[in-house]
Amino acid sequence: MRNLKRKHEAPPKHVYRAKPLPFRTLLNGISDRSLKNHHDKLYMGYVAKKNEIENHLEELGRAIVSGKADGGNPTYSELRSLKEGETYAVNGVYLHEWYFEVLGGDGKFENAGELIDALTSSYGSVEAFIKYFSECASAAHGWTVLAWDTKESRLWIYNCDAHNQGGVWGALPVIVLDVYEHAYVMDFGADRTLYLKAFWKNFNWSAANDLFKRASSIRL
Amino acid sequence: MRNLKRKHEAPPKHVYRAKPLPFRTLLNGISDRSLKNHHDKLYMGYVAKKNEIENHLEELGRAIVSGKADGGNPTYSELRSLKEGETYAVNGVYLHEWYFEVLGGDGKFENAGELIDALTSSYGSVEAFIKYFSECASAAHGWTVLAWDTKESRLWIYNCDAHNQGGVWGALPVIVLDVYEHAYVMDFGADRTLYLKAFWKNFNWSAANDLFKRASSIRL
Amino acid sequence: MRNLKRKHEAPPKHVYRAKPLPFRTLLNGISDRSLKNHHDKLYMGYVAKKNEIENHLEELGRAIVSGKADGGNPTYSELRSLKEGETYAVNGVYLHEWYFEVLGGDGKFENAGELIDALTSSYGSVEAFIKYFSECASAAHGWTVLAWDTKESRLWIYNCDAHNQGGVWGALPVIVLDVYEHAYVMDFGADRTLYLKAFWKNFNWSAANDLFKRASSIRL
Amino acid sequence: MRNLKRKHEAPPKHVYRAKPLPFRTLLNGISDRSLKNHHDKLYMGYVAKKNEIENHLEELGRAIVSGKADGGNPTYSELRSLKEGETYAVNGVYLHEWYFEVLGGDGKFENAGELIDALTSSYGSVEAFIKYFSECASAAHGWTVLAWDTKESRLWIYNCDAHNQGGVWGALPVIVLDVYEHAYVMDFGADRTLYLKAFWKNFNWSAANDLFKRASSIRL
Repeated sequence: MRNLKRKHEAPPKHVYRAKPLPFRTLLNGISDRSLKNHHDKLYMGYVAKKNEIENHLEELGRAIVSGKADGGNPTYSELRSLKEGETYAVNGVYLHEWYFEVLGGDGKFENAGELIDALTSSYGSVEAFIKYFSECASAAHGWTVLAWDTKESRLWIYNCDAHNQGGVWGALPVIVLDVYEHAYVMDFGADRTLYLKAFWKNFNWSAANDLFKRASSIRL
Repeated sequence: MRNLKRKHEAPPKHVYRAKPLPFRTLLNGISDRSLKNHHDKLYMGYVAKKNEIENHLEELGRAIVSGKADGGNPTYSELRSLKEGETYAVNGVYLHEWYFEVLGGDGKFENAGELIDALTSSYGSVEAFIKYFSECASAAHGWTVLAWDTKESRLWIYNCDAHNQGGVWGALPVIVLDVYEHAYVMDFGADRTLYLKAFWKNFNWSAANDLFKRASSIRL
Repeated sequence: MRNLKRKHEAPPKHVYRAKPLPFRTLLNGISDRSLKNHHDKLYMGYVAKKNEIENHLEELGRAIVSGKADGGNPTYSELRSLKEGETYAVNGVYLHEWYFEVLGGDGKFENAGELIDALTSSYGSVEAFIKYFSECASAAHGWTVLAWDTKESRLWIYNCDAHNQGGVWGALPVIVLDVYEHAYVMDFGADRTLYLKAFWKNFNWSAANDLFKRASSIRL
Repeated sequence: MRNLKRKHEAPPKHVYRAKPLPFRTLLNGISDRSLKNHHDKLYMGYVAKKNEIENHLEELGRAIVSGKADGGNPTYSELRSLKEGETYAVNGVYLHEWYFEVLGGDGKFENAGELIDALTSSYGSVEAFIKYFSECASAAHGWTVLAWDTKESRLWIYNCDAHNQGGVWGALPVIVLDVYEHAYVMDFGADRTLYLKAFWKNFNWSAANDLFKRASSIRL
């Protein structure tokens, strides 16, 4: 919650703003129709729901704290429902932003020295990493994430089956790949392999490298 | 994976070591039998499984990269199973460590100035925060986490229904509360409210403040 | 919904009644404190929540049909939350009833000829079945269910990780075993093996046989 | 398992056969490309995985019973993985078969007297039922199911977020609607409302009525 202290003021409004796609180029193999559907409808829908849920929670939280509303119940309660919807919407927003951030490139390993070095050191070669990461992505229902795991200061791949399933606490994403059906069914039907190839063709290694440098500098 | 490059060496062993409880005092209201069960059997069991899974993945990953093993399938495959078990075990280890880290205190708000200030600013008072956080914890099946959410540079409460459900990418835990039944049923039966009271009585605000200071200094 | 047709009447009340434990004897190895907690607090709590949710849905459903309330959204909506809580509560009620129904016995294979024959035919012996079913139960987070699967007319074991996870459509339970932590942590800590032994010691084969005879007679 | 008794024989092979689509007509608004992808790749893929998993379980089960393989562990074990994949694959097969069974019609309420009467009695009119069922389907991630719930002898709508989430024990499907993204994204992008309209246009009320008559005759 925010500023609950100032009781006499109205609760602050949550106005998280949807980010535009961080690239202008047409993607190679992923249709504009699919991408627009993905960004303008799905991602922007999650942003709207995130704001709706968090505004709702501001009010409910105040009412609970002041004894005017019922608190939590783990089978069904308004608080439970909102908190559950919140992790779905929040991760839905964040993960899509990280995903779009590494798209729009040309797949060339330029300006990504630090990440390339780290991947080569762990996986033997970038090609070996791409192969393994892609197989992990073939095994997930939702997302595959290469993250800087601050708990162990390691670069690690984790798999998610939904926006709010599989998230690892303390892990900062570097490469986020969406394997929800909405990401590929329109262009490729059930053939996820073709989508994975298209992902790497459009991959922006330089953007991923920036995420890696910032994340991996953190020592908690 | 680690050091896959050096093909002729055996894969490195994952030997994550279980941490001992970070306090020696008996807890107030939470029995030693329950705590020992929690730390020595459950937590240490997750550590053992994390090592087992990651060692298994080192081998499978190498075999996949070199074309000697099948890759991923999202309905059932060895890779899928291990990656799913991994987020369960890894979060099971990490969350328990953060949980034990803020136990063993006396519930007094000393040496926790920065966190107290931040909570007061957001929730009006620490008491209001405790009330709201506890109600969130009454609405979850697994964990309630106050985290520094690096995506928005905000201190936020998130709810989880299992070790690997509800985790938020990019979020660094500050206060982690276990509400799995194993945390309280032995001492309190189904009465989670009594457990929540005991949690705050044994809360180590100074330890939580240290986590907060480190996490909130991060700007990505 | 029920009787929505009669618009001018108030929606009917859902008054599902909690069933008492179907046995009076003390269990062997499972404490009365644990059992009372299980039945009187948890199970009866699910019954209360089931009624609350379904009464709430009666009203919301009418409002949606008549255009006075918003409909469904898959990220967060009141309808989504209630429908999700419903499968949790409904299965929480049903599964506990089937579980209690096969407790309170002495573990002797009497008056259970049909089921014993079927298990022997599939698993080689009842002991082999008990061994395999128990290992399945050691691998689940919620329930293990031997069911008559009407889609294939087969007797089959399925595993569940939560009340509303793992349920198989068209399957009629015969032997339901609760492996949620609330079922055993109070008496056995993390030692689920001891609980499984206690389960079979208190198993009512005759009651399971009745369930089997009725279920397996069904041909769809 | 099947026929474990005959130890010296090889385990029986699971050879569940994929059913062809039960209609020949082109659907109205749902493209053939989408339908072929849905039936020939996804559904048939689940059938193949179901057989693979169950054959694997036959072997593992025998090895466990004879002490030659490790049993179950709830964080990660081969048995856990297979049993979890099994409910995903089995429900993936069954639910798709029930879904295809009520497609290929013309949406006219003919030869469906019993079901129409039951729906009218519960929901006031078939139109009110369609409206409410469709809103439930707008609130789910996986499936919406009208089922005959044998535990309470009632016709009820339940929502699922995945093949193996939300299933209700003892419930026999009558109307099964797939709202996974694979069912509609190719034809309608994120616009699920258009898909729901198409579903009802192609609905086979007579087939649903047959399912209803058989299911609702059952009294356990």
